[in-house]
Amino acid sequence: MAFKDYLQALKKLEYQNLFENDFFLTWDKSDDELKAIFAVAEALRALRTNNKSAKIFDSGLGISLFRDNSTRTRFSFASACNLLGLEVQDFDEGKSQQAHGETVKETANMISFMADVIGIRDDMYIGKGHTYQKAFADYVNEGYQDGVLEQRPIIVNLQCDIDHPTQIMSDTLHIINEMGGIENIKGKKIAMTWAYSPSYGKPLSVPQGAIGLFTRLGAEVVLAHPEGYEVMAEVEEIAKKNAIASGGSFTKTNDMTEAFKDADIVYPKSWAPFAAMEKRTAFYGEGKFDEIDKLEKELLKQNAKHKDWTCTEALMATTKDGNALYLHCLPADITGVSCAEGEVDASVFDRYRVPLYKEASYKPYIIAAMIFMQKIKNPAEKLQELWDQDQKRLDK
Amino acid sequence: MAFKDYLQALKKLEYQNLFENDFFLTWDKSDDELKAIFAVAEALRALRTNNKSAKIFDSGLGISLFRDNSTRTRFSFASACNLLGLEVQDFDEGKSQQAHGETVKETANMISFMADVIGIRDDMYIGKGHTYQKAFADYVNEGYQDGVLEQRPIIVNLQCDIDHPTQIMSDTLHIINEMGGIENIKGKKIAMTWAYSPSYGKPLSVPQGAIGLFTRLGAEVVLAHPEGYEVMAEVEEIAKKNAIASGGSFTKTNDMTEAFKDADIVYPKSWAPFAAMEKRTAFYGEGKFDEIDKLEKELLKQNAKHKDWTCTEALMATTKDGNALYLHCLPADITGVSCAEGEVDASVFDRYRVPLYKEASYKPYIIAAMIFMQKIKNPAEKLQELWDQDQKRLDK
Amino acid sequence: MAFKDYLQALKKLEYQNLFENDFFLTWDKSDDELKAIFAVAEALRALRTNNKSAKIFDSGLGISLFRDNSTRTRFSFASACNLLGLEVQDFDEGKSQQAHGETVKETANMISFMADVIGIRDDMYIGKGHTYQKAFADYVNEGYQDGVLEQRPIIVNLQCDIDHPTQIMSDTLHIINEMGGIENIKGKKIAMTWAYSPSYGKPLSVPQGAIGLFTRLGAEVVLAHPEGYEVMAEVEEIAKKNAIASGGSFTKTNDMTEAFKDADIVYPKSWAPFAAMEKRTAFYGEGKFDEIDKLEKELLKQNAKHKDWTCTEALMATTKDGNALYLHCLPADITGVSCAEGEVDASVFDRYRVPLYKEASYKPYIIAAMIFMQKIKNPAEKLQELWDQDQKRLDK
Repeated sequence: MAFKDYLQALKKLEYQNLFENDFFLTWDKSDDELKAIFAVAEALRALRTNNKSAKIFDSGLGISLFRDNSTRTRFSFASACNLLGLEVQDFDEGKSQQAHGETVKETANMISFMADVIGIRDDMYIGKGHTYQKAFADYVNEGYQDGVLEQRPIIVNLQCDIDHPTQIMSDTLHIINEMGGIENIKGKKIAMTWAYSPSYGKPLSVPQGAIGLFTRLGAEVVLAHPEGYEVMAEVEEIAKKNAIASGGSFTKTNDMTEAFKDADIVYPKSWAPFAAMEKRTAFYGEGKFDEIDKLEKELLKQNAKHKDWTCTEALMATTKDGNALYLHCLPADITGVSCAEGEVDASVFDRYRVPLYKEASYKPYIIAAMIFMQKIKNPAEKLQELWDQDQKRLDK
Repeated sequence: MAFKDYLQALKKLEYQNLFENDFFLTWDKSDDELKAIFAVAEALRALRTNNKSAKIFDSGLGISLFRDNSTRTRFSFASACNLLGLEVQDFDEGKSQQAHGETVKETANMISFMADVIGIRDDMYIGKGHTYQKAFADYVNEGYQDGVLEQRPIIVNLQCDIDHPTQIMSDTLHIINEMGGIENIKGKKIAMTWAYSPSYGKPLSVPQGAIGLFTRLGAEVVLAHPEGYEVMAEVEEIAKKNAIASGGSFTKTNDMTEAFKDADIVYPKSWAPFAAMEKRTAFYGEGKFDEIDKLEKELLKQNAKHKDWTCTEALMATTKDGNALYLHCLPADITGVSCAEGEVDASVFDRYRVPLYKEASYKPYIIAAMIFMQKIKNPAEKLQELWDQDQKRLDK
Repeated sequence: MAFKDYLQALKKLEYQNLFENDFFLTWDKSDDELKAIFAVAEALRALRTNNKSAKIFDSGLGISLFRDNSTRTRFSFASACNLLGLEVQDFDEGKSQQAHGETVKETANMISFMADVIGIRDDMYIGKGHTYQKAFADYVNEGYQDGVLEQRPIIVNLQCDIDHPTQIMSDTLHIINEMGGIENIKGKKIAMTWAYSPSYGKPLSVPQGAIGLFTRLGAEVVLAHPEGYEVMAEVEEIAKKNAIASGGSFTKTNDMTEAFKDADIVYPKSWAPFAAMEKRTAFYGEGKFDEIDKLEKELLKQNAKHKDWTCTEALMATTKDGNALYLHCLPADITGVSCAEGEVDASVFDRYRVPLYKEASYKPYIIAAMIFMQKIKNPAEKLQELWDQDQKRLDK
């Protein structure tokens, strides 16, 4: 598709509610709004590929507030901000005086005086991340209404305990492009399955985000995991409702083989059991660190019972034409490469390496598109203007 | 006041000495110079509020050299730099080769090759911070004269052992706006008082900066602290002289109640005793870390004798109309919130939360105004030009 | 020389191969190519000195990937990027998920989605740094060819185990300017000599880079070190060939006095023995950390036998007219200043302090010139355009 096609697509959509609103969860947004973000992401990529500047900010700050380490998301956010003309300032709580008893309310205001966007990653504790982001948003809202802040910075969820919208939307844009259009995902079987990893406690936001979004595309979404590896019940409810609305389906199984059988798309990935993560959060709140250590050991032992949950060549052969699209949010635990036994066979991973990297490459554009829609009142018009003004990004 | 009023105010002031000069201490500067900075800070804020770019740099670096952690000041400096078009580069001595015996002189030159501004925070040791900043300035001066540096970067004191000009000027701009003009501060009673905190060794730069600047406004400034919590004698001398010159007064008391009585403005805040801090610096110099530990324990014990030095509702009720303006540089030690017993009652703090955040919100503009005056020969003309050119900061 | 002279010089040179190529080692490049970088470095400096913007990027990222700490190189890279309009994003492997088994290939792609330049410093292990940089370059190349990356970011070697091109080219530009032209270096005696330092394991990239580049200038290059402090044999081979081609010479000695005798230029600096460093890399690979500790102790003991290898006033007096140009990459181990006994007498160092700082001041321009040549197809034309457009860097 060409630049003008993305603008054309955009014109048919209702997305005004994205303007000056935070992005927390994909299911807070309408189908049109998500489609608009996909279209804008592609339009921004087209601008860049054509060496045209997409700067809409003359100056301004994007704050990255990460409560967990991350290369990919950090770089994606920085790239998105830079593309639009914002400078990134990292807020590292470790470095700050937060430890001295500074409250979230105060922090939210203090780092927002000249902030246009705040990207928050907080996926460490179940029941905490989303709550933190919402609280943060309320505080900057208050700050804006009280005249403390000149502008109300917009929040972008860069991963919470419930959803990982920038990841899943990148995954989805990848699927759209691989399938030749969002309409072609209808009826496709997508297997979101647990896979074994020797490391403990991977976030649930990816499988949750996946079932929350893929079910809106009219796909046959299967969630597969060993018993005891349930995700949040409320997200399953959302997936069910979405599937009904979209004419797709949402089913669950404890059998990885069943999930892979004839699947068009597979997303095998480790995660921690929700119930255990809830327990962990409670222990954390009570300062019971011995109990946390014990729990981690138990979970590793539990994980180890399911080493057969791994994406092998044999399993891949059972997918549609033996050729399902393999997805991963990266980094993957690759058997014999990054660990002795992991989520995926090295040969499978290698075969999909280029598509996997492409999948990841959408993230900066998804984030930039979110910010663009949050900040620009008439995005189609502004994109056209950026195209026509033809300011060279690198003036060779 | 509108943008043009700030320019009008500026035209009546003598401030040419700010140009290409460092900013170390407020008492190095004339009344006119400080007023000019207030006017420019407000003009820059007006540009921003009106979505007009204040970029005067096409490229360039602002170096933040922090020898102590800080969220607020770090973000304020980054915001100020970004507003004017400078990119911030943090110089973290821990990360650098300073430990390998690199001298300050060498560092000063090595980080300044393309630096326009260097913001230094060095408040850890009495007798060291200001000295360090002055030495740093001398070295970049030399480097410039010797042809090592193409431009002479300007130093902004982001807190030293003697003064905290960006903080106190933000406090003062807040007072000016709350009182409806700088002329209305004349005759007002301002109580800068010590308050109990369970943490040890808070810097003296805030009370010292406060008595050094508030006494220039014609105010009745009272410095209150328990016996043994004296601030630097030379700053008290400055406060005395300033009070005489401005027609205000500077008095001291060991009675918090007396200080609060009928006060228009109160600034209750913990700090460490100067004499103890001097001792600590000496121990540090001699490598006597055991002695430092012992001293810290003694000081905490000493602090604990003065838990009654706290800003209660009862005490606030004794201020002018029971309604004094409560100031704090944040973060505050709030009783029952950030600590069991602290500087201020939670209900008092909560009542003043919005004004306190506004007080803090001036800092990026104060810093930007300092840089602006140091770099721009005809600030009034340039501000008018920025207003008229109307380059949108965010082109919505 | 004036701006137009640098452009004039540029016009006589063949340098098209620099365009869109990485910079790993000076001996990968032709004499013309190196001369072109010197000319562009000076032209960029002239733009800056004349307050003219050298921004060629409207937006874009420069990634600094440092596997060892560094103030100077970090700031030089940041300054170079800022000069050209790129924002720096640090990739700190410690902070990232590299430790979780992420491969270099994946990292190379993940941090390059919007990267224009990647500056890599990796000098810790003999046999590793250059190899890492080449692998990294191969991976981004693949990523570009596979359509993962929209542009192919360019690699700049900010120091590896073999060469330190940005350092040695800065040193050389300093020599050129001190000698009044590159042609005046012909026949000059340059002593690259080992010197004692109490610290262990300094990289070999400086002496190796020095003999690799200085021998191309028609100079009489002498490499001096105690027995056992050999550098990489393959770099010595390159130095020999270069000397023959340039009409200069390359000789070795184990006598510092002989090296200094009548030298026009001296570069006394500590480094670790190549053979020991190879052993160390092997131990590291085998996880034999006890052996590494033992080796370090042995090396320190070995170093201590050569405390007489130090740049004294007496030794300086034996150089040409007692007045050789003293070079150092900084920071130096200065006797009685940064250590009890070190590489150089304090009085010698002090006498050369200003030239040493100037030597260092070329590095941001060398790096910027490398990037400029890698990114701009017609550099002479573009430089002229930047000069004529006369966009003020700081609009005073």
